[in-house]
Amino acid sequence: MASAETGVAEWREGHSLPQSFYTSGMTFNADMEMLSTSQWLLVDHESRIAKPGDYFLFEFGAESVIVIRNRSGDVNAFFNVCRHRGSRICLENEGNKRVLTCPYHSWSYDLNGKLRGAHLMPSDFDPTNVALAPAHVRVFEGLIFLNFMKGTPPDFDAFCAPFGALLRGQGLASAKIAARKLYPTAANWKLVVENFFECYHCNSAHPTYCSVHDKMKMLAFGAGAGSGDDQDTILYQEKLKRWEEHSEGLGYPVGMFADNAESVYFRSGNRLPIADDAKTESLDGKPLAPLMTEFGVFDGGQTGCVFNPIGTVLVNNDHAVIFHFIPKSAHQTDVEAIWLVAPHAVEGQDYQPADLMRVWDVTLGEDKTITENNQLGVNSARYQPGRYSTQERRIAEFAKWYMEAVSARPQAL
Amino acid sequence: MASAETGVAEWREGHSLPQSFYTSGMTFNADMEMLSTSQWLLVDHESRIAKPGDYFLFEFGAESVIVIRNRSGDVNAFFNVCRHRGSRICLENEGNKRVLTCPYHSWSYDLNGKLRGAHLMPSDFDPTNVALAPAHVRVFEGLIFLNFMKGTPPDFDAFCAPFGALLRGQGLASAKIAARKLYPTAANWKLVVENFFECYHCNSAHPTYCSVHDKMKMLAFGAGAGSGDDQDTILYQEKLKRWEEHSEGLGYPVGMFADNAESVYFRSGNRLPIADDAKTESLDGKPLAPLMTEFGVFDGGQTGCVFNPIGTVLVNNDHAVIFHFIPKSAHQTDVEAIWLVAPHAVEGQDYQPADLMRVWDVTLGEDKTITENNQLGVNSARYQPGRYSTQERRIAEFAKWYMEAVSARPQAL
Amino acid sequence: MASAETGVAEWREGHSLPQSFYTSGMTFNADMEMLSTSQWLLVDHESRIAKPGDYFLFEFGAESVIVIRNRSGDVNAFFNVCRHRGSRICLENEGNKRVLTCPYHSWSYDLNGKLRGAHLMPSDFDPTNVALAPAHVRVFEGLIFLNFMKGTPPDFDAFCAPFGALLRGQGLASAKIAARKLYPTAANWKLVVENFFECYHCNSAHPTYCSVHDKMKMLAFGAGAGSGDDQDTILYQEKLKRWEEHSEGLGYPVGMFADNAESVYFRSGNRLPIADDAKTESLDGKPLAPLMTEFGVFDGGQTGCVFNPIGTVLVNNDHAVIFHFIPKSAHQTDVEAIWLVAPHAVEGQDYQPADLMRVWDVTLGEDKTITENNQLGVNSARYQPGRYSTQERRIAEFAKWYMEAVSARPQAL
Ligand code: FES
Ligand code: FES
Ligand code: FES
Repeated sequence: MASAETGVAEWREGHSLPQSFYTSGMTFNADMEMLSTSQWLLVDHESRIAKPGDYFLFEFGAESVIVIRNRSGDVNAFFNVCRHRGSRICLENEGNKRVLTCPYHSWSYDLNGKLRGAHLMPSDFDPTNVALAPAHVRVFEGLIFLNFMKGTPPDFDAFCAPFGALLRGQGLASAKIAARKLYPTAANWKLVVENFFECYHCNSAHPTYCSVHDKMKMLAFGAGAGSGDDQDTILYQEKLKRWEEHSEGLGYPVGMFADNAESVYFRSGNRLPIADDAKTESLDGKPLAPLMTEFGVFDGGQTGCVFNPIGTVLVNNDHAVIFHFIPKSAHQTDVEAIWLVAPHAVEGQDYQPADLMRVWDVTLGEDKTITENNQLGVNSARYQPGRYSTQERRIAEFAKWYMEAVSARPQAL
Repeated sequence: MASAETGVAEWREGHSLPQSFYTSGMTFNADMEMLSTSQWLLVDHESRIAKPGDYFLFEFGAESVIVIRNRSGDVNAFFNVCRHRGSRICLENEGNKRVLTCPYHSWSYDLNGKLRGAHLMPSDFDPTNVALAPAHVRVFEGLIFLNFMKGTPPDFDAFCAPFGALLRGQGLASAKIAARKLYPTAANWKLVVENFFECYHCNSAHPTYCSVHDKMKMLAFGAGAGSGDDQDTILYQEKLKRWEEHSEGLGYPVGMFADNAESVYFRSGNRLPIADDAKTESLDGKPLAPLMTEFGVFDGGQTGCVFNPIGTVLVNNDHAVIFHFIPKSAHQTDVEAIWLVAPHAVEGQDYQPADLMRVWDVTLGEDKTITENNQLGVNSARYQPGRYSTQERRIAEFAKWYMEAVSARPQAL
Repeated sequence: MASAETGVAEWREGHSLPQSFYTSGMTFNADMEMLSTSQWLLVDHESRIAKPGDYFLFEFGAESVIVIRNRSGDVNAFFNVCRHRGSRICLENEGNKRVLTCPYHSWSYDLNGKLRGAHLMPSDFDPTNVALAPAHVRVFEGLIFLNFMKGTPPDFDAFCAPFGALLRGQGLASAKIAARKLYPTAANWKLVVENFFECYHCNSAHPTYCSVHDKMKMLAFGAGAGSGDDQDTILYQEKLKRWEEHSEGLGYPVGMFADNAESVYFRSGNRLPIADDAKTESLDGKPLAPLMTEFGVFDGGQTGCVFNPIGTVLVNNDHAVIFHFIPKSAHQTDVEAIWLVAPHAVEGQDYQPADLMRVWDVTLGEDKTITENNQLGVNSARYQPGRYSTQERRIAEFAKWYMEAVSARPQAL
């Protein structure tokens, strides 16, 4: 069986990864460790837990994390493991709790995780030292992020800094969840990531997506900053510049950035127009919901924020979509999309969930099929890492970033 | 991966076990070996195979054992593996056989396992040396026990000795099976055992069970001898003594014992009253079936006999329940309950199976849920062995007993 | 866990294999490697892909192979893995393609596997060096064979040589597929093979098969050349000789051969009569389809050709049956049967598929049950390799052949 070291040695820049990185269970476990400790994982929007006591469970590998709003309105996160004999404490996927009571022997914890009650314990048992194990949790623009590091987590403010300007004024923090859908995908998470960060496949596989987006833009920035062919990017510059001047005139932010492979993060951000005359990412370019931004007018832009390879948000003028990819095993990944609209928008009146979801629902369905067939081929002994095209520059960078992360792993893995 | 040795070193007395003991496949295999060779496994009641040729299959790991009554009325046990090319011989879960004929090439064995017929064999093949591989089998009070040791099994009489007096006169040997039900539980067998041998969770989880049993007794002896809080046990002593004098007056045996953790066995026994005015373990305390005992009168007692951590029988005045837990994998256990009544009792007239089963059917259903949620929490990297309460004394002893058994294992495991 | 070396040392000639050969996942992987590189795998009949562009997929382990007829009418075989990022190229089990276009990013290959189109590739990318990875493919008497060796495959003509004379004039090459059926069997492929190459179980397990075939022949050659008891073989010689003279008089070939265990192949061939007065392998001995042979008359013979342990064809005067066993895991094998008839035969008029399939459909269904029960018994720690009878001589030879093949493996496996 190829070890991680063998795989690293085998890999050549500009090529997809050696087989074992897409198929090995040991690599999968190491990936989960890397993702949950070195990255801030985008888990949901805080409108899901608006009131004190509201909680949801975030499942990641063997871990279940209770993300809950406490009485002061802060968001806390605790591993869903009782400190008595380890039972799960919250059994429902979401709900509201005044206190966290274990269903097994009724040990109870307050919303800050402190043990409040445990009866019949030996006299030398000190309950004041006992609390639920916390996960690091932060909120930025309404987005909830988790980190599982046992010690100090990565600096969150530094992590978020590049996104602040790009998201200004677009109402993401105050948005509310309108819909969510899961696309369970029988493929390694890195194949899901590679699929998401290139638009080389858009022409073959996504007729709907192509009918919505500017063709020249798709060649230059189809999967965001740094994703397209160099020449196509130059060709598109002038058009983009004209749109940026127009948007800035309306008060909107503009700009673009992308971490390179040496960074511990793999972030990128950009504001790009959807298509000529399109107000939002809809089949006909017309709005799907009330304006979310503070600028009083549509600029037809889409803000893309990639927080890490498995967590992205796309913010249109009238709605936003969170994408997160939850690795389940070496051969399985849950892709989830969460659609957001303005807080005052009324379902059935101001927006229709099915219409809101259409473009990405079709596209993610297509991506599921593509990616599963990619995995099946990669399982073959005759799979060889292949050369990336010039329209796959961002995933060439991802492969490099990932190999850096792998090389940094303890040798034992 | 944590090895057994690491786990043993990590464990602290008074605490639940380190994670790997509840999750590792290698530990599971070693546990199966330990249970099947060092213990006498309680498999069923012999009324299941009343007539010569009657048999049933007992499945344990990869093993299927034919438990069959021979022409002399003795109970034999054979591994269900043909000595020709290894086919299963009996394919049905139970039935009656005059001879054991392999369905593949018709080799046939008599009810003592001897090869009787094999045609067209080479001339140097000696059929007189060929027989089905036996398992050790013994019967005590109608209960059938198996042991898989290849050499001499543990001394059965010594093993049974402490139970004789407690079971005297209660009709267990002559009882008949009235009902059976399986509760497949997605949890390690040791979590099932821990659940069964403490009543710390009764208040939170078992309203029906609590409505049936004396509250003070549940605190003192809710899961049998040695299970309760010391102070509660003292408080209950006087009440228990009064009941014991009454029972002895009626001719019933009384008493209590429990192996400690140094013993190779983990046996315990006790006779306890169910509740004031209760004749048996039923919702209203009224009998569910005709009296099984030879004493002509109800004393409302329940005889608990724990033969090993995965085999227990509870004998009431009018019915008994066998509980056995069959480990299926590191994360799965089959809990089976078998209800027994007096041999002459007529179904639908003298007893209703659904009523007979009610209290434990409800309770075991609740236990399944609890235990599965315990496993899910224990799977977390943040699970830590927790401190046992004073009402979990018997499972603190079980943990100690189990760690002794593990430490005795060959290092290779 | 028993290694292959331990297993080899443990094995005694004349006995079935030690347990690990039937249960170990590592042995299974090594078996797949051995079968696909040292043998010519019988995969289908070329009438399945009659026209240029017709293809089907052959699945073997993690491999999917596109078997396709090119514009010149030759049969090609390519691993179904795109040379870009490894997607499967053909997604349907069979069909017709003018060009092989990858569904992911539309790289396209011609029917000889050459890359024809890949857009937006870096300037130093040389498409002329890129082609689909080929599998070795050959056709003999209409039967398609594959070999996965990366270098030079075994000499195909030498491999086929012994079958030529036996198959002469029987219309196999020009036949067409009339029906196919899969029998997924929960057993190791070697248990399937052992089942197929002995008729010691026919009496116990196959009443239908026994009612069709000559009893004396079944004892002598029930599973082909070298399968029966020596004495029974001698007894049958005279009858066989008489039939052979009759057949030769009609123009048919006769004869018999079998590789011994030292050969790299495990081939055998024979022509045998089905039963007195039987024209073909049907319930009543009457034809099921028009005559396939060039001799204008039925001789009631059946030509058996065993190309390797997992690929056999039986050719009757009016129809043929291909049997191939596709190992899926250590505990699972797909048995597939493919029925062939003369090219001009018309379904529903000249033959009824259900009637055509009957004898083997019943027999393979029975074999599935038998073999699955064999696997269950072999899983037991008490399974011991058993002595073969004198009617299992061919599988005694198979065991020996297999142990030779295993001993030749690199030690690391
Ligand atoms: S496991 Fe939570 S209270 Fe016991
Ligand atoms: S396997 Fe039992 S008779 Fe052959
Ligand atoms: S994987 Fe086939 S064209 Fe990209």
